[in-house]
Amino acid sequence: MHYGKHLLVEVITKNQKNLSNESFIKKVFEKIIKATKTKKVMPITSYKFPPRSTFQGKISGGLTAFSIISESHLSIHTWPENNYFAFDLFSCKNFNEQQIIKIIKDNFAINQIVYKTIERGMQVNFKNPEPIPERIKNA
Amino acid sequence: MHYGKHLLVEVITKNQKNLSNESFIKKVFEKIIKATKTKKVMPITSYKFPPRSTFQGKISGGLTAFSIISESHLSIHTWPENNYFAFDLFSCKNFNEQQIIKIIKDNFAINQIVYKTIERGMQVNFKNPEPIPERIKNA
Repeated sequence: MHYGKHLLVEVITKNQKNLSNESFIKKVFEKIIKATKTKKVMPITSYKFPPRSTFQGKISGGLTAFSIISESHLSIHTWPENNYFAFDLFSCKNFNEQQIIKIIKDNFAINQIVYKTIERGMQVNFKNPEPIPERIKNA
Repeated sequence: MHYGKHLLVEVITKNQKNLSNESFIKKVFEKIIKATKTKKVMPITSYKFPPRSTFQGKISGGLTAFSIISESHLSIHTWPENNYFAFDLFSCKNFNEQQIIKIIKDNFAINQIVYKTIERGMQVNFKNPEPIPERIKNA
């Protein structure tokens, strides 16, 4: 049984632009939701962390945004002080990773980007599964 | 630069018990947050999907819960119709995977459980990184 595909993306940007911008990040989420034809079931949740003091002075705080979709979720965590963010898309509906990577590249000033895809679910992850009960196997 | 550890857990339960129970799932999240000494920055978000019709009749809908913590996030997606859930903990603060697995085992009727841990961040994931700017290296 296959329960979904989980795309994990690590990005280094050229600058901090938009990494603390909640409305911008939400717009990028909307683009990904549209492109993957998934369905948002409630408003996107986001939290902006307070500014941090660095040796360069105050710097905008990072943010976390999360969207619950029928197919699972999107999440992002940004670290503007390091021009870094981590993005995840977990969907029980198949999607094209390249399409997601393109949206990310088109919307941020990318310095470096890497990603990996992990299959979620028992047939993939359970090497020696117990026999699956009939009622589940036939569901 | 290391940005965190991401634990991905796949679980097959013996029954559907608590897989549609929002308050129960939230309590399990609270236990994990307490055990990892992480900090919840806003109330846990959850969404319960409508019941599904199966050949056995109506079955409780799955749920998704998500908690934004200072250190990143916890998430869960349940499929009661298949006695399955996927749990994730992404934290920029180190934690003991075994402690999390124990909490999951103690709180659900486990049939099978597997997990993997992925390091997030550029030193781990970027095999040939560009030189890191001095201001970032020293931050």
